Amino acid sequence: MTLDMRRVIDPDTYFDHNLPPTNLQWAHDEVDRFVKSQSPDQRIVLVTSGGTTVPLENNTVRFVDNFSAGTRGSSSAEQFLAQGYAVIFLYREHSLQPFNRNYSHNTRGILSYLERTSEGQIRVKREWEEKMGRDLDLYQKYTGSKLLMVNFTTLSDYLFLLREVSLLVASLGPRVMFYLAAAVSDFFIPSHSMSEHKIQSAGGDLTLRMNQVPKFLRPLVKNWAPLCFIVSFKLETDPELLGPKARHALEKYGHQVVIANMLDTRKCQVWLFTKEASDPAIIQISKEDQDAGRDIEQDLVEELDRRHQQYISNGQQQ
Amino acid sequence: MTLDMRRVIDPDTYFDHNLPPTNLQWAHDEVDRFVKSQSPDQRIVLVTSGGTTVPLENNTVRFVDNFSAGTRGSSSAEQFLAQGYAVIFLYREHSLQPFNRNYSHNTRGILSYLERTSEGQIRVKREWEEKMGRDLDLYQKYTGSKLLMVNFTTLSDYLFLLREVSLLVASLGPRVMFYLAAAVSDFFIPSHSMSEHKIQSAGGDLTLRMNQVPKFLRPLVKNWAPLCFIVSFKLETDPELLGPKARHALEKYGHQVVIANMLDTRKCQVWLFTKEASDPAIIQISKEDQDAGRDIEQDLVEELDRRHQQYISNGQQQ
Repeated sequence: MTLDMRRVIDPDTYFDHNLPPTNLQWAHDEVDRFVKSQSPDQRIVLVTSGGTTVPLENNTVRFVDNFSAGTRGSSSAEQFLAQGYAVIFLYREHSLQPFNRNYSHNTRGILSYLERTSEGQIRVKREWEEKMGRDLDLYQKYTGSKLLMVNFTTLSDYLFLLREVSLLVASLGPRVMFYLAAAVSDFFIPSHSMSEHKIQSAGGDLTLRMNQVPKFLRPLVKNWAPLCFIVSFKLETDPELLGPKARHALEKYGHQVVIANMLDTRKCQVWLFTKEASDPAIIQISKEDQDAGRDIEQDLVEELDRRHQQYISNGQQQ
Repeated sequence: MTLDMRRVIDPDTYFDHNLPPTNLQWAHDEVDRFVKSQSPDQRIVLVTSGGTTVPLENNTVRFVDNFSAGTRGSSSAEQFLAQGYAVIFLYREHSLQPFNRNYSHNTRGILSYLERTSEGQIRVKREWEEKMGRDLDLYQKYTGSKLLMVNFTTLSDYLFLLREVSLLVASLGPRVMFYLAAAVSDFFIPSHSMSEHKIQSAGGDLTLRMNQVPKFLRPLVKNWAPLCFIVSFKLETDPELLGPKARHALEKYGHQVVIANMLDTRKCQVWLFTKEASDPAIIQISKEDQDAGRDIEQDLVEELDRRHQQYISNGQQQ
């Protein structure tokens, strides 16, 4: 496994050389309608969630994927709704969705929650009724009016949709937050150097050369949505790299917050880096609280809510 | 993208150098119990379904995946049950499951099928009641007694489980069918040459060298389950390669059936290759039948059922 120093393509070039997703126009219209339906002081957050795929073949049989079930994103979306935000949820197809997340991605299927009544109706089993009822009420309360779902699969889908949504919400300025929790590929194979058909395994090794994905945080912060409150994530497995890389991202892109987390402990501890503070704020949750059903995203989102309100106030004072 | 001719490792060597999945002992015990609970002439099919992942890092953030939602496998499992088989369903976690498959892997979540009654109970919406009721009845009828579910994620999980199940059912001989519909990776990165931590994208290209996965159909047919009826699959995107590769597999491994299909048309046409016939049998389904909710797996499994019965009879006459 080797890394070569090469020229990384410009973000704009990426869009010139890749096809937009089929749902781009639909997403444009839906986000436009959703944003216009909100009151003028409504705070809005774009939550991105789940991993992006990178196809290895034009007729795709194989792809590189990023580990992410969408737990952080879907749980955070619920918390943002509870805090009064309108949420645009840009998520990987089949990854976890707000409120539904407790009943998918386990080895049980939907039918295992159901039973027939003596009258022949199909109902949720009694042991699930209370919890599922609570989630159903919230799901119905928010869907459409305060929660808009937009799905992607590939890296290319994601980048086109991110740009589209950014340009649509940019004019709303500081009251929009970007919460970029999706696990986005760092490497891709450009369409023109991809194999047309399924790669054959006639006997031997396979060598794949992948190009680095341009860093889209730069145009997002500088050009697409320069007045918005932008929160990015940094996930590592090597603890030595985490702090320096989080700080480096803040300096390089000039946005508001980097949330750093380790793969192994991401559900119980995160570090919140900002330009203003020399040390990161630590948010953590005990094993007991986790077992009792509390998610770290509740504390994390409450903290971001406070900082976002401060950001809006500061903007109004200037 | 280049292919080099190299020595491919021996299947046994693979097991020496990779760790078994955590559910291996559980799977052993469950399959053993399941098989022993069947009547002595009960036909049994092992259906494998979904794609395998190949991690790129030991602390896995990225992996190569194979395109497969598990449609063929989950639909076929339902048809085998309808034909009277006992089914061991070895499937990729989160891929489609028999009977549940119609209500997952769409952009709707489980909650979208539910509503509150005036008495506060949570029930399935009227428009879904009939269809879901039918699937629920079948799900409850078969689960446990005639349908056993065993899940995998990585290539390594899959291979260990395949060997384990094969060795457990081998002694039952011809009345066991293997229906190998899972999309198994052809390439992998050996654990010792994997990156320990998340691969860094400090600037530049990434070159991945992957080794060829040994062909496990050979020990399966020759050593693990030599008396069983074995059906393998061949998926291609280049029509020129499909026939020759299917025929080559039959000659090389000496098993009973290869089902050949093209990525684009796999839901409406398959070719059934056997050693006995010079031309493949074609099974196809019209657009109208598909739209009416009929799956090609119904015809495919009925055809395999006939051939399997013939295989058993031939074995008894010898």
